[in-house]
Amino acid sequence: MRGKFITFEGGDGVGKSTQLSRLAGFLHKNNIPFVETREPGGTQQSEDLRNLVVRGDVNRWQPISELLIMTAARAEHVHHVIEPALNAGKWVLCDRFIDSTAVYQGVAGGLGFTPVFDLHTMVNANLMPDTTFLLDMPEEVGLSRASRRGGDARFEKKGETFHKKIREGFLELASTYPERIVKIDAQQDFDHVWHAIQAEMIKRFDLSA
Amino acid sequence: MRGKFITFEGGDGVGKSTQLSRLAGFLHKNNIPFVETREPGGTQQSEDLRNLVVRGDVNRWQPISELLIMTAARAEHVHHVIEPALNAGKWVLCDRFIDSTAVYQGVAGGLGFTPVFDLHTMVNANLMPDTTFLLDMPEEVGLSRASRRGGDARFEKKGETFHKKIREGFLELASTYPERIVKIDAQQDFDHVWHAIQAEMIKRFDLSA
Repeated sequence: MRGKFITFEGGDGVGKSTQLSRLAGFLHKNNIPFVETREPGGTQQSEDLRNLVVRGDVNRWQPISELLIMTAARAEHVHHVIEPALNAGKWVLCDRFIDSTAVYQGVAGGLGFTPVFDLHTMVNANLMPDTTFLLDMPEEVGLSRASRRGGDARFEKKGETFHKKIREGFLELASTYPERIVKIDAQQDFDHVWHAIQAEMIKRFDLSA
Repeated sequence: MRGKFITFEGGDGVGKSTQLSRLAGFLHKNNIPFVETREPGGTQQSEDLRNLVVRGDVNRWQPISELLIMTAARAEHVHHVIEPALNAGKWVLCDRFIDSTAVYQGVAGGLGFTPVFDLHTMVNANLMPDTTFLLDMPEEVGLSRASRRGGDARFEKKGETFHKKIREGFLELASTYPERIVKIDAQQDFDHVWHAIQAEMIKRFDLSA
């Protein structure tokens, strides 16, 4: 039986990777085999592309080039990691996926949703997550958390207007795909966020707490 | 007045860069301002992408990922180099362009022409050269020249069947676009090849020998 595909989305600093780890522990307790991964990246070829995109000058790439590079990275990730895992019955937990591209390059980059989803259909047969957790908080709160953490910073340097568009873009996707995307208030403390995710997982996939 | 856009195409080792240099000297004698460039590459961002594609294991990328990376490199090259030069009235001489993508990823990579030209329309408004010189020779002759030269070798390692498809793909494009693409027998000595190119340039663009 094919595994389930779960993604975490949201701006920088909202706590995606922390919650993804908690979900991993929860699946482990439920004896469900899974793979943890992230985008852009998740396989050597994709990490090579990631390094070109997440580092360097803030205006290093045109949005259309970023879109193509992100889509190439995703093609490798889907082919070498995600599809083989799902087909082997493993669940896949992924930190960012197509919604991030739709929002960062599509909305904030000014390309719109259409070319992003058109390319996704052409390249990855429009593979969509079974469930997406959108961790939502005001962009300034997430950014200040992300800057304390340090790390890959090209997108973090893009300024307030850019990150405001990121949040609005995610919220627009959440209202367009209300069944797939579960919006969670990520300003709550981490345990409350986790309990909301856990409750949703139990309800959707018949798991035990 | 917008400059003219001239590209050189053909398999590895057919003599593209040598003939491009001769054409540069000829334009100089005709007092025509020009830019010499190449693909993949031609600008820093595109060279960074080039390095990911022309090196490493022969099966490093799926053809669709190569197509996306090549198209991203072209988007940067067109935006930062080719269009500004043409708009400033300079001629652009480019070693490889869209036809190489159509043949390497489209034909030899098995994707077909459609996604290649669709992406080119979407990303680069289908910018086409005014004239393309296709330097044609049997693939084994070009490959043995290329291997003596050394250098970026990932595509050269792809084997005989691959390079046979490359030659056939270029010939198919030449018969599909007989006005744009000038096919030249590149097995002649370099001077004969040059004289054929020069004659065509004189005829097409009213230049003096």
